[in-house]
Amino acid sequence: MKKFSEMTKEELIAEKEKLDLEYAKKQDLKLSLNMARGKPSPDQLDIAMDMLDVLHQAADYKSEDGTDCRNYGILDGIPEARRLMAQVIGVREDRIIVCGNSSLNIMFDTFSRAYTHGFVGNTPWSKLPQVKFLCPAPGYDRHFAISEHFGIDMITVPMTPDGPDMDIVKEYVENDPQVKGIWCVPKYSNPQGIVYSAETVRKFAALNPAAPDFRIFWDNAYAMHHLYEEIEIPDIMSECVKAGHPDMVFEYCSTSKMSFPGAGIAAVASSRRNIEDIKKQMAVQTIGYNKLNQLMHVRYFKDIEGVKAHMRRQADIIRPKFEAVLEILDRELGELNIGEWTRPRGGYFISFDAMEGCAKKICAMCKEAGVVLTGAGSTYPYHFDPKDSNIRIAPTFPSLEEMKQATEIFALCVKRASVMKLLGEF
Amino acid sequence: MKKFSEMTKEELIAEKEKLDLEYAKKQDLKLSLNMARGKPSPDQLDIAMDMLDVLHQAADYKSEDGTDCRNYGILDGIPEARRLMAQVIGVREDRIIVCGNSSLNIMFDTFSRAYTHGFVGNTPWSKLPQVKFLCPAPGYDRHFAISEHFGIDMITVPMTPDGPDMDIVKEYVENDPQVKGIWCVPKYSNPQGIVYSAETVRKFAALNPAAPDFRIFWDNAYAMHHLYEEIEIPDIMSECVKAGHPDMVFEYCSTSKMSFPGAGIAAVASSRRNIEDIKKQMAVQTIGYNKLNQLMHVRYFKDIEGVKAHMRRQADIIRPKFEAVLEILDRELGELNIGEWTRPRGGYFISFDAMEGCAKKICAMCKEAGVVLTGAGSTYPYHFDPKDSNIRIAPTFPSLEEMKQATEIFALCVKRASVMKLLGEF
Repeated sequence: MKKFSEMTKEELIAEKEKLDLEYAKKQDLKLSLNMARGKPSPDQLDIAMDMLDVLHQAADYKSEDGTDCRNYGILDGIPEARRLMAQVIGVREDRIIVCGNSSLNIMFDTFSRAYTHGFVGNTPWSKLPQVKFLCPAPGYDRHFAISEHFGIDMITVPMTPDGPDMDIVKEYVENDPQVKGIWCVPKYSNPQGIVYSAETVRKFAALNPAAPDFRIFWDNAYAMHHLYEEIEIPDIMSECVKAGHPDMVFEYCSTSKMSFPGAGIAAVASSRRNIEDIKKQMAVQTIGYNKLNQLMHVRYFKDIEGVKAHMRRQADIIRPKFEAVLEILDRELGELNIGEWTRPRGGYFISFDAMEGCAKKICAMCKEAGVVLTGAGSTYPYHFDPKDSNIRIAPTFPSLEEMKQATEIFALCVKRASVMKLLGEF
Repeated sequence: MKKFSEMTKEELIAEKEKLDLEYAKKQDLKLSLNMARGKPSPDQLDIAMDMLDVLHQAADYKSEDGTDCRNYGILDGIPEARRLMAQVIGVREDRIIVCGNSSLNIMFDTFSRAYTHGFVGNTPWSKLPQVKFLCPAPGYDRHFAISEHFGIDMITVPMTPDGPDMDIVKEYVENDPQVKGIWCVPKYSNPQGIVYSAETVRKFAALNPAAPDFRIFWDNAYAMHHLYEEIEIPDIMSECVKAGHPDMVFEYCSTSKMSFPGAGIAAVASSRRNIEDIKKQMAVQTIGYNKLNQLMHVRYFKDIEGVKAHMRRQADIIRPKFEAVLEILDRELGELNIGEWTRPRGGYFISFDAMEGCAKKICAMCKEAGVVLTGAGSTYPYHFDPKDSNIRIAPTFPSLEEMKQATEIFALCVKRASVMKLLGEF
């Protein structure tokens, strides 16, 4: 099929008439589909249901150090949960704290601590005239929301196929002491599914920040979420140690998309010095997190091999949905030159870049045809995508059949919006 | 027996020799007992074990509004959990948020929000030259630790048998705009077990604070923890509404000492305006709390009658321990005029006031005889008990037999320290 950009005005008008008809037909179906939610489907959760039996069947409720997990005690997580979560992200088990059900909450708390008390003796952010954060984009809207909540000046950093543009990162971090951190999703990034290259990881570790309290917020949310082969990247924490910057990273992970998003366990890893600093403040915040839930997770998964086996079963459910989306995008849009999209090997999202100025229009058009997408712009700081181009597609939650229907409507809307754009209709 | 204060020096010396012998004998037993921990005993937890079966046996994992509790969603708690927790403290179910496993963590987060953002549009505490808090004492050390963590100036307010001295409270709150809050444990206070009188509750509601963002932190931790008859106090939230101060209270509660201290559910209640303010910030902090745990609690307890029945079973386990402590204190110290103690009708503690200047000595002496007590002073702000007199006794965790042994050693140490004090030995 001819590229839209090469069509004459008459051809575009004819194309639009055809697309209008198709769109009207889709609207008549009165569908209600959702490609917005980065959440597991019920059948992904079903395969973890045996987890709810392990405590019921248990003879005792003690962690391996003898602690009664039903009662108060243990601030930083039961030893076996720390070990398991350390293996998930490949760090030392004495460098990790296992908390409640939300790694996002741990990240928020890290910001809150920085704001009220500062990291290990540094000036609290609340006492500084300005704090800046680097935000590789497109990125995760909830990361940006935390920064915005604390009044932080967000600086967008472009993404490359190897991760954030490290020349720009280095320039900011090494010259501006107001730059206190950067958000990273190093493996299967949200929304592009990009895996940071080994070189990118090492460039991060080699940064010589102008700010002594500069920190990398390394959200390793999808460490185990391979759709195909297992992909490993260098451990940022040991790279930082090697580079002489042991305290420069907070690494986060959770089982939210392994066991249950509402009821998983989450963890933060860092240097001994940072961990002690966190624990000192956590001791005021709580007596401890839900250890029965930690115990349940360890007794169910048993070890890292158990986690991997479980994640392979999940991948078998998710993979066909990703492949269906890509197949439809290839078929419907492959030759038209009106959009580009990523082909992730894992994670939860596909990132779509429409023609400039079309993303909002496409989302609105999809909505009117019964397909909800993540709001255009939300992958950028302040919800502002300068090109109005990026759209996040979340294939996991709907059924395969629903996902196909939704993607077909999406592709139709991309075509229709692009034609309208080329015709100057908006 | 003769009062110590009426003994001659010779009598005191003779008494001390006798006590020294007894003490040496106790030391020889090499006991290891603990009266410090305000935590349930294992047999209290055992009676809740069926809770771990209710989800295992469940046909579905949906809350009554159809939400899959295993997945993301619902910021403020599933409806049935909000209803149950609202009934526990007698508030409206649309005025409560159910969170994770720790009400202490919710209190900490409330402070953190006040510090970083301020309450409903008021100046954040971090931007104020000074923030003061009223701390009725003896009180709960973890409350004081939160205040101290945020650099707040703590002002001790004396307790009366009806609650905090309301004349002093009123004087501070109505005249000093730097006074931003007060800590309260209104029912079975920690450590005295005092139940605030209806008049005290109404005096709280009638306060006209100098600070527009003054808040009462009403930690209703022991709402259901009756040892004998059910005792009710007026609902502070509706009293505040009646008095025209709807936004003046944050009320906290949890099931930590109903189900499992490590794995219960906790809640905060307040006015519509405050709840909206909290939720706005919580939406940045987390996607939601552990709803499976919320569901498990509701399906196990069913309703408020289920909670009450469960708490009666717990009381049957705890009551004999409280009575044993009181019986031994009465028998050993009743006529000596060297200490006073409370006789709580519920809660988790007995408060003991030794002769001035003796609390630290008693705790140290107990420790050397194998009995750990909560550190003297910890019931006061900054761990400073001006009279060095108050000691918190926690009867719940040890077995009845252990508790008797420990109390006997405690009484012996009280006598020995008092004689030494009267002899001018320290």
